Amino acid sequence: MGRWEPDAFGRLRDAALALFVEQGFEKTTVAQIAERAGMNRRTFFHHFADKREVVFAGQADSDELIATEIRAQPDSVDPLHAAVAGLRLAADTLYEQYRQGAVELGRVIAESRELRERELVKRATLADRIAAALRDRGTAEPVALVTAWTAVAVFFVARNRWNQPTNDRTLAGLIELTLEEFVRAAPLPSA
Amino acid sequence: MGRWEPDAFGRLRDAALALFVEQGFEKTTVAQIAERAGMNRRTFFHHFADKREVVFAGQADSDELIATEIRAQPDSVDPLHAAVAGLRLAADTLYEQYRQGAVELGRVIAESRELRERELVKRATLADRIAAALRDRGTAEPVALVTAWTAVAVFFVARNRWNQPTNDRTLAGLIELTLEEFVRAAPLPSA
Repeated sequence: MGRWEPDAFGRLRDAALALFVEQGFEKTTVAQIAERAGMNRRTFFHHFADKREVVFAGQADSDELIATEIRAQPDSVDPLHAAVAGLRLAADTLYEQYRQGAVELGRVIAESRELRERELVKRATLADRIAAALRDRGTAEPVALVTAWTAVAVFFVARNRWNQPTNDRTLAGLIELTLEEFVRAAPLPSA
Repeated sequence: MGRWEPDAFGRLRDAALALFVEQGFEKTTVAQIAERAGMNRRTFFHHFADKREVVFAGQADSDELIATEIRAQPDSVDPLHAAVAGLRLAADTLYEQYRQGAVELGRVIAESRELRERELVKRATLADRIAAALRDRGTAEPVALVTAWTAVAVFFVARNRWNQPTNDRTLAGLIELTLEEFVRAAPLPSA
């Protein structure tokens, strides 16, 4: 895989995102990314399966953190709030300090059909991880999956609000606000 | 486009689904589908953009019916129950009589990564349609989108239950049951 490069991952990711912003995702090649980072294509493919994966780098770690936090919630917390507690932790520890990058990345994704479709796959992966964590807490299968997708929707709606130029709230605060708005509009439990 | 064929759409769809079940989605070509239906490739492409679209044929009509029914719900109905009312109507009028086909189609989709990803795109399209219908009823943007994704999750979780070999409930009944289970597990509204 060539000689070891200090923070090759970070340099390749930064080079790729800069090129995606400058010239768009579709027009950017792996060769260009490697050249900008001062490396070769083999080093790129040592760190990323393809150029799409650069856009979603870190998601596996984020999903893992979210699932762990959900499992750590006390039994008294209902499934939806348990799921959202995981998302808030990820917001505070992984997302909040990178808002400018997230805004640019959001624009890159919005402009590419391939990336928008890839994002749906990543959302489904996150929903499956959340549902598995809820099942581990004793939530039945149908409720776990519906709750997981609701939480994922809260997360991406909140991220979209967070990315607005006029926004001055934290992502965790917007997750909480979006959840509250949904719960307020939702029907009363029948039991 | 060649001469007019009586119910060319239906014959092509039936031929395609039979081939997908027999030999899998990936191994089936448009030429084989056309041959099985006794038509040529041009007729196929007159009716379908590609072979994936055969699997999701009818979804646009289903989405339209759901959105119309949501807009027709009285103001007193909360957004989540309005969304689910649309899904129940589609279940009764479009899905219920095709359960066997739905079971086979579910298996075809589950076995193909390409189709599973395409299904996520179709779910997102349905969620966007539901959210737009809810906004037309006066639901604010963030709540409309979270509610739409919750309803879509209720729909596909219910469809999965409906497709189980041991199931003897209707799809509309399972949609209602899944919604009730979710609402019962959800937190009390804070207002």
